[in-house]
Amino acid sequence: MAVRTPDPDPDGEGDDLSQFSEPPAGAGNPAWLSEFELAEARRRLPMLYVEAIPVRTDGTGQVTELGILLRSTPLGEMTRTIVSGRVRFGETVRDALFRHIENDLGPMAFPLLPPQPVPFTVAEYFPIPGVSAFHDDRQHAVSLAYVVPVTGTCEPRQDALEVTWFSPEEAASDALSDEMEGGRGTLIRNALASLGLLR
Amino acid sequence: MAVRTPDPDPDGEGDDLSQFSEPPAGAGNPAWLSEFELAEARRRLPMLYVEAIPVRTDGTGQVTELGILLRSTPLGEMTRTIVSGRVRFGETVRDALFRHIENDLGPMAFPLLPPQPVPFTVAEYFPIPGVSAFHDDRQHAVSLAYVVPVTGTCEPRQDALEVTWFSPEEAASDALSDEMEGGRGTLIRNALASLGLLR
Amino acid sequence: MAVRTPDPDPDGEGDDLSQFSEPPAGAGNPAWLSEFELAEARRRLPMLYVEAIPVRTDGTGQVTELGILLRSTPLGEMTRTIVSGRVRFGETVRDALFRHIENDLGPMAFPLLPPQPVPFTVAEYFPIPGVSAFHDDRQHAVSLAYVVPVTGTCEPRQDALEVTWFSPEEAASDALSDEMEGGRGTLIRNALASLGLLR
Amino acid sequence: MAVRTPDPDPDGEGDDLSQFSEPPAGAGNPAWLSEFELAEARRRLPMLYVEAIPVRTDGTGQVTELGILLRSTPLGEMTRTIVSGRVRFGETVRDALFRHIENDLGPMAFPLLPPQPVPFTVAEYFPIPGVSAFHDDRQHAVSLAYVVPVTGTCEPRQDALEVTWFSPEEAASDALSDEMEGGRGTLIRNALASLGLLR
Repeated sequence: MAVRTPDPDPDGEGDDLSQFSEPPAGAGNPAWLSEFELAEARRRLPMLYVEAIPVRTDGTGQVTELGILLRSTPLGEMTRTIVSGRVRFGETVRDALFRHIENDLGPMAFPLLPPQPVPFTVAEYFPIPGVSAFHDDRQHAVSLAYVVPVTGTCEPRQDALEVTWFSPEEAASDALSDEMEGGRGTLIRNALASLGLLR
Repeated sequence: MAVRTPDPDPDGEGDDLSQFSEPPAGAGNPAWLSEFELAEARRRLPMLYVEAIPVRTDGTGQVTELGILLRSTPLGEMTRTIVSGRVRFGETVRDALFRHIENDLGPMAFPLLPPQPVPFTVAEYFPIPGVSAFHDDRQHAVSLAYVVPVTGTCEPRQDALEVTWFSPEEAASDALSDEMEGGRGTLIRNALASLGLLR
Repeated sequence: MAVRTPDPDPDGEGDDLSQFSEPPAGAGNPAWLSEFELAEARRRLPMLYVEAIPVRTDGTGQVTELGILLRSTPLGEMTRTIVSGRVRFGETVRDALFRHIENDLGPMAFPLLPPQPVPFTVAEYFPIPGVSAFHDDRQHAVSLAYVVPVTGTCEPRQDALEVTWFSPEEAASDALSDEMEGGRGTLIRNALASLGLLR
Repeated sequence: MAVRTPDPDPDGEGDDLSQFSEPPAGAGNPAWLSEFELAEARRRLPMLYVEAIPVRTDGTGQVTELGILLRSTPLGEMTRTIVSGRVRFGETVRDALFRHIENDLGPMAFPLLPPQPVPFTVAEYFPIPGVSAFHDDRQHAVSLAYVVPVTGTCEPRQDALEVTWFSPEEAASDALSDEMEGGRGTLIRNALASLGLLR
């Protein structure tokens, strides 16, 4: 796959699409960036991201399934990814995580955000491939990644087409990993390891 | 307080009281210990424990309250503690955690066990005070400690009298810490730190 | 203290002082920001930081002392802080951590960076006090915080005057916490909790 | 491999071989178990273990190589394992970790034990295969597993024949995993994930 971006961003508008589709809030806030300014900043500063792997758990809290988003790129390719988005100026990491989960999975997903602020891993996306396991040709992004149980119904929004649920074994497979953008197959395996579910 | 035990054990029966009150199951299982054997083993081997701090969270997963158990010792003293108990032979850590939460908080607590197996801390209880922050004059116990959100109604059972809910600030106080048995005030502060709520 | 900044920055030049004192490198790199651009970005985007608490350990790896930096503010006030600085565009978190430790503690500190990328906590600094435990009136900064054993000799550089070594008990004290800028007394306590040294 | 034990134990004497080969110390300590008693306890209680994966790091703390022990079983099979052993009564987890590293790697390994007490994973070994990823037909053992940089020379002792150093890629391979006893290939992969080195 040629294009690997850490969040659904088909139109180059930045990950926070709702920011731009909600003019009354966005327009009046000098702390937010215009599309042009965000593009400039992306060439100069590491962007702070949050990422979430939605999971289903059984009655004892053991993860039984991991949810992977299927989306269509602007070029019509199908790729797989996870919940991912930028932390805004003035926003807490927790609020950013909640906002992006709701944006991607809909308001009925009922996520159970982890009580702890420490991510299971810190994923570093570089515009030049090979610096780390993760790649984003658009920017240098540093992502705090979390596993988030969801208890409701996921209705993918924005450009996500569906959420597919995989068993831990399937989620760790090379086949799935090859379909995931930006090296996120590695992120899934890191998550499985943190859950004690990697073999 | 003279007696500081890591779990409710008024009669010296071991922490797994239900084991002894359910003869059909316990009696026939050679993998379980008699009361005498358990007392012997406690003088010779470190015992593996799990501990849980029940918490209430808000809609974004932030902890708002911590639940502390009030209990009466055999001598009639009132002390405060958390959910705590031994891991049985053949039992997973997760199952032990679930069992002790249900034993102490009742079947309607609806706990959300963490999906990860790694505890927020490993607490080492020694029979001789001063070796570590934790003390248990009955045994050497090593405890895997977890924060567990509960979503239902806690109805303390066994010898626990009630669950009292404290704000993070109250839970970190010296006053509460002094009332807690075995040095568990330190465990509460460690939990608050892991939650990003210690000041 | 009125001014609480996450890194030594007496002249408003940004944390990467060496960037500006080394024109040949900085001037030719379009990925780095001019002083003006950095000031602009700070008003619009969360800045990614790394922070390090230098520690001394005994032969079994147990932390015996924590190093706190004493520095003089532009107004001549004395404050205490830890190693802290921004992650540059294209720089790994690990390299940023190493660079800031060398900048603040000198080339003979011989730090042992942790092999794991996950910080002991994520500290969120907001320009408006009270949003979190951490405050920086200059910017919104999100900091990945690490405990880093140092085995050599610390020779504070830049505007740091000295490194003072404190026992875990002293480091957790209210007296020290009050002297630390930006709420970093809380960060020290979080570090002590992660080390199993908070009481 | 038929026999999968969590530590070198060719003679069924328990992992603490030195305990039995040092009668003056062992014989007089009522807190330690006779060989018979330990065998009994192993059939009734979960045993608390520590495990260590020795690693080499570069100047910035990044892991470059992982050390795997090659040993010969009583039946003459060659298997691979890591540093592993029981926590004794009255012994801290840290002291047990240090003792077993010295026992297996010799006194010149100069290990740098992690300052934090929390393991990268908790591995549960059951006598019945399939309960978890880990198996030990001799006992139910719960192991706190750590990554430990070593800076000196490893001279395997006891029944370990040599320490072989593998790159992260080699260490994650199926080939190596198949040679490791008790499911410890999974433990290696969990360690690599915690180090940000799993692909």
